[in-house]
Amino acid sequence: MSILCVGSVALDSVETPSGKADRVIGGSAVFFASAASLLSPVRVVGVVGDDYPLDQLAFLEARGADLSGIEQRSGDSFFWAGRYHDDMNTRDTLDTRLGVFADFEPKIPDAFRESKRVFLGNIDPMLQHKVLDQVDAPEVVVCDTMNYWIEGSRPALMELLGRISILMVNDEEVRQLADEPNLLRAARWVQERGPGMVVVKKGEHGAILFADSWTFFIPGFPLERIFDPTGAGDAFAGGFLGCLAQQNSTEPADLRRAMVYGSTLGSFAVEKFSVERLIDLGHDEIDDRVRAFKELTSFETLLPVEQRV
Amino acid sequence: MSILCVGSVALDSVETPSGKADRVIGGSAVFFASAASLLSPVRVVGVVGDDYPLDQLAFLEARGADLSGIEQRSGDSFFWAGRYHDDMNTRDTLDTRLGVFADFEPKIPDAFRESKRVFLGNIDPMLQHKVLDQVDAPEVVVCDTMNYWIEGSRPALMELLGRISILMVNDEEVRQLADEPNLLRAARWVQERGPGMVVVKKGEHGAILFADSWTFFIPGFPLERIFDPTGAGDAFAGGFLGCLAQQNSTEPADLRRAMVYGSTLGSFAVEKFSVERLIDLGHDEIDDRVRAFKELTSFETLLPVEQRV
Repeated sequence: MSILCVGSVALDSVETPSGKADRVIGGSAVFFASAASLLSPVRVVGVVGDDYPLDQLAFLEARGADLSGIEQRSGDSFFWAGRYHDDMNTRDTLDTRLGVFADFEPKIPDAFRESKRVFLGNIDPMLQHKVLDQVDAPEVVVCDTMNYWIEGSRPALMELLGRISILMVNDEEVRQLADEPNLLRAARWVQERGPGMVVVKKGEHGAILFADSWTFFIPGFPLERIFDPTGAGDAFAGGFLGCLAQQNSTEPADLRRAMVYGSTLGSFAVEKFSVERLIDLGHDEIDDRVRAFKELTSFETLLPVEQRV
Repeated sequence: MSILCVGSVALDSVETPSGKADRVIGGSAVFFASAASLLSPVRVVGVVGDDYPLDQLAFLEARGADLSGIEQRSGDSFFWAGRYHDDMNTRDTLDTRLGVFADFEPKIPDAFRESKRVFLGNIDPMLQHKVLDQVDAPEVVVCDTMNYWIEGSRPALMELLGRISILMVNDEEVRQLADEPNLLRAARWVQERGPGMVVVKKGEHGAILFADSWTFFIPGFPLERIFDPTGAGDAFAGGFLGCLAQQNSTEPADLRRAMVYGSTLGSFAVEKFSVERLIDLGHDEIDDRVRAFKELTSFETLLPVEQRV
């Protein structure tokens, strides 16, 4: 089942304690599609300038991704430059140039309108609304956002909550949105306003899915070296929705497994700069890491009762 | 199997966004024993002043804990006062008065010297050495420490690493000790210096056990309300070692389960001030939460291969 994804298609210049990368492909739609396309067909909608190396997205098409929704316009592509601190958890934005992204008006190609699985990358909530306006009958809509929109576009964002299935944000964002420091209560606050589920991404600390009557937690995979955390959240979303779309089910067992695939793809994404690690990632590697997650989290339950004090 | 625990027996005054508690019982040995005694017999060694409400520790004796190693001396008990911030993850220390704890010289009663399971609470590494000098042949030694000793008593602490089985500290501490921001590499650095295992406590983000050839992660339990995080780490250690001692085994499956009981007891500890929640905690409640941890973390592994793109 194909996934429609709408978000930024960008160029990033990134410095981390592990090295530097200059004007490499990035953006929420690119990271999402690079992960999701390993599991399900993806349809990408976005905008780039005439400086964008579209040939570097050929690996997506080779996996069956449809990039016909990426509009190329005269001007510069969205550009972001940032530098990560030693702990990799904090970063400084050095430069942001919107370029042609400033006037982005998502146009969903006719062939994409029947999409049942939709990822709304982190863009203006007004544009996220416009995407949904052009999709016939979406069944699962996963939506990301950020502090900038929570502060500046709250009414549009609040209305959007009524149109999505899963809000997928990081811990700071859900706390800010709900104005509630407790994560569980913040998630419940969101759920009361529309989305049946909230996925809270906590970076290296893992991610947690709050559903109606149950909760699921998956840790971040312990890695010896993180090259570049950029895009990990979008790769998580791609693994999550890619897994869900492949199963065409939203049963709890499938949602749990989708979280594992999300954390798996997120953990690969940070092992190299840009989407490098996701380009030639093999299914055997994905399988091995999913099994490693099982090993990382499995335990027998109760102590034998007869030995209880 | 009895556990010997040595640490502070203190009085705490705590302010959190949920309320205040004044001069309530606390300290690493008290939190540890309150949790561990639910699972295994505990022997406590510490020192208190003549102001200490020893009668409030009667619940431990009722569970078979041996408090004969708590020395009462003329003077004031160790007193700590602190205030937690809104996010409950950071706190300000408002007051610390060592009192009789300043001259604490742990004396291990003869009857305790054959203990095979030992918990060295967060005290001066020189004193932790003195405890081990008085134990005949300990088999599992779990040791806590803090930034104060990592900075001020590094040689004694480094030597101690060669005498313990499991270093159990929080993420900042292991990073500081190893001078290494990456958690996995920091743990490996410690393991190369003696302890076969390192348990890193990450507060609400859970805890991770680094063993020789495997790693286990348990999340923090998602709670709607945290009353008081004080002592959660020591309650975790109590649940962990209490579970291990009951099984008299350090097989991987038992260590994994011990982590679950650690996180379980830690999660109960924060639900009320001081050790209140641990005093009348029932085994059915413990069982239910362990099962809830199972529900929180369980998933089926791989996607069905035939549906792979």
